[in-house]
Amino acid sequence: MRDLAAEDISVFGYTHTKAGVRAATREGFDAHNDLTAVLSRASASNALIIIAVPMHAVEDVLDAIAMYAPNCGVTDVVSVKQGVYELIQQRGMQPRYVGGHPMSGTEDSGWGASKQGLFKRAAWAITYDYAVECEEAGLPVPRDWIELFRHVCKLARICGAEAVPVSVAKHDEAVARVSHLPHVLAEALSIVGDRGGTLAQSLAAGSFRGATRVASTEPELVRAMCETNADAVVKTLDEILELLHSARDSLSTHTPSIEQLAGAGYRASTRMGARHGARSESVSPIKISSRPVMRVQLGAHGWVKALKQTESLGGRIDVF
Amino acid sequence: MRDLAAEDISVFGYTHTKAGVRAATREGFDAHNDLTAVLSRASASNALIIIAVPMHAVEDVLDAIAMYAPNCGVTDVVSVKQGVYELIQQRGMQPRYVGGHPMSGTEDSGWGASKQGLFKRAAWAITYDYAVECEEAGLPVPRDWIELFRHVCKLARICGAEAVPVSVAKHDEAVARVSHLPHVLAEALSIVGDRGGTLAQSLAAGSFRGATRVASTEPELVRAMCETNADAVVKTLDEILELLHSARDSLSTHTPSIEQLAGAGYRASTRMGARHGARSESVSPIKISSRPVMRVQLGAHGWVKALKQTESLGGRIDVF
Repeated sequence: MRDLAAEDISVFGYTHTKAGVRAATREGFDAHNDLTAVLSRASASNALIIIAVPMHAVEDVLDAIAMYAPNCGVTDVVSVKQGVYELIQQRGMQPRYVGGHPMSGTEDSGWGASKQGLFKRAAWAITYDYAVECEEAGLPVPRDWIELFRHVCKLARICGAEAVPVSVAKHDEAVARVSHLPHVLAEALSIVGDRGGTLAQSLAAGSFRGATRVASTEPELVRAMCETNADAVVKTLDEILELLHSARDSLSTHTPSIEQLAGAGYRASTRMGARHGARSESVSPIKISSRPVMRVQLGAHGWVKALKQTESLGGRIDVF
Repeated sequence: MRDLAAEDISVFGYTHTKAGVRAATREGFDAHNDLTAVLSRASASNALIIIAVPMHAVEDVLDAIAMYAPNCGVTDVVSVKQGVYELIQQRGMQPRYVGGHPMSGTEDSGWGASKQGLFKRAAWAITYDYAVECEEAGLPVPRDWIELFRHVCKLARICGAEAVPVSVAKHDEAVARVSHLPHVLAEALSIVGDRGGTLAQSLAAGSFRGATRVASTEPELVRAMCETNADAVVKTLDEILELLHSARDSLSTHTPSIEQLAGAGYRASTRMGARHGARSESVSPIKISSRPVMRVQLGAHGWVKALKQTESLGGRIDVF
């Protein structure tokens, strides 16, 4: 909302808390507490609707959209995509839905925690499953859906983010690894650290704080992301449990060693960091994205295949 | 070295790499490559010797100190204290040794990674086992050792850090929880994230980077800290493995839940953060430490007991 308003784009919103409405209104934003009225207004102006609620609240919001804004395109910023897409499918809303997930946030929530520029240079995952489903069924992808996809890519760009095309399934598998598992580990590490009492608290420094920062996220939000992506999270938990058991065993011998884990972890960290490296270490005042870019002419021959290729590289798209 | 020089305190040093000597000399620091010469000079000026090498190199350094600087007080900044203290005991050097560990660092190493002010407001763990051993043996704590303890507290203060008294055993147990375990988790999480390939790399954001930052530490340094503190690290690994297995099981049911871990992790995180909160959220321009302070008159009646009390609170001492 802050990013769009800063670009003079008309934006209005609904939140269920009166305190949220007051806080946003005080800063001059067009915020309201009446969902029906906001959706009716969205319908009248053919607005793009952005759903930004925890997973458990998505269903009711979709039902309200179906009733009061049946003509509007819909996207979302929920951290799990399979659960949202199932609700979309149950309502036959696929032709007017493009999923989204900007990969940036903090451990805080509520209007007071929002800030302009939060999504700058972040990946904004954008799903395209409906286009694949159409092609596989031998049907043309509807023009309206293509325009909606373009609209969501533009939304990401306006927020300074980079549009990364991704299928619902691949998204949920990837974020289990790089977002949900880190949240689970942060919770567990906080507990183990806290058991050390005030001395451990006093000695805790950067490595602990960095690894546990997201443990101060509202527990309901952590539950929402992990419980609705449970299969993928359990898979990554099994992977890390195997690594940790192995490290535990090699540290329990007469000649304790953690050589294998430390070496493999360092190499993995170097590979993971390489992508971010180009960005942060560049001496140029113009920040260059480290994600490979693919220019895609939406709707042109082979464009869905181009999205798949970009996805396999974790690349970003520049649409025209 | 940077912090001491900035306060116009005479400081000179030895490093085994010629590149390190060149880099420090280029910036005007008094650095050398000849250990015997540096220790002889330390002996002549009755300097306080600060050992800042990985654990596996401590033994050789102590032997050189015993030979070339037999009169000097010795402290160290190694991240494990039991292993160092055993080497000290083997050489009967307890009367001229006070262990230290400033709880601040980065994932980088070498002279180029050093910076003035790195230890500002950090806890500087300072061991006092020798004083306890003397008292338990019914012996007075030697004045020289008390002066050395005072000297090391002053070193911490000059660097802007806070002197936290701690026994060797309690130190190693606490840092296993809040430093070594986070390093082990960072290595393992890096591996699991990297297995997600370029898409996972592209989508990785703050929660992943925060939790894996220290995985880019030189593997030899991670090995040095974890392998020489293996018993304590294995204990904390067992604790976190139990928590993660439990979370895995409750996420694998028909109604996946992570309620228990998310709730307990959030509460633990709140408690751990409370200590740092006062410091970072204060509106006063003068930063106030969140560690309780105890004024201790070194050598006075009950002073060792006061150190133990301060340790149990994770407090800092102001010595006089």
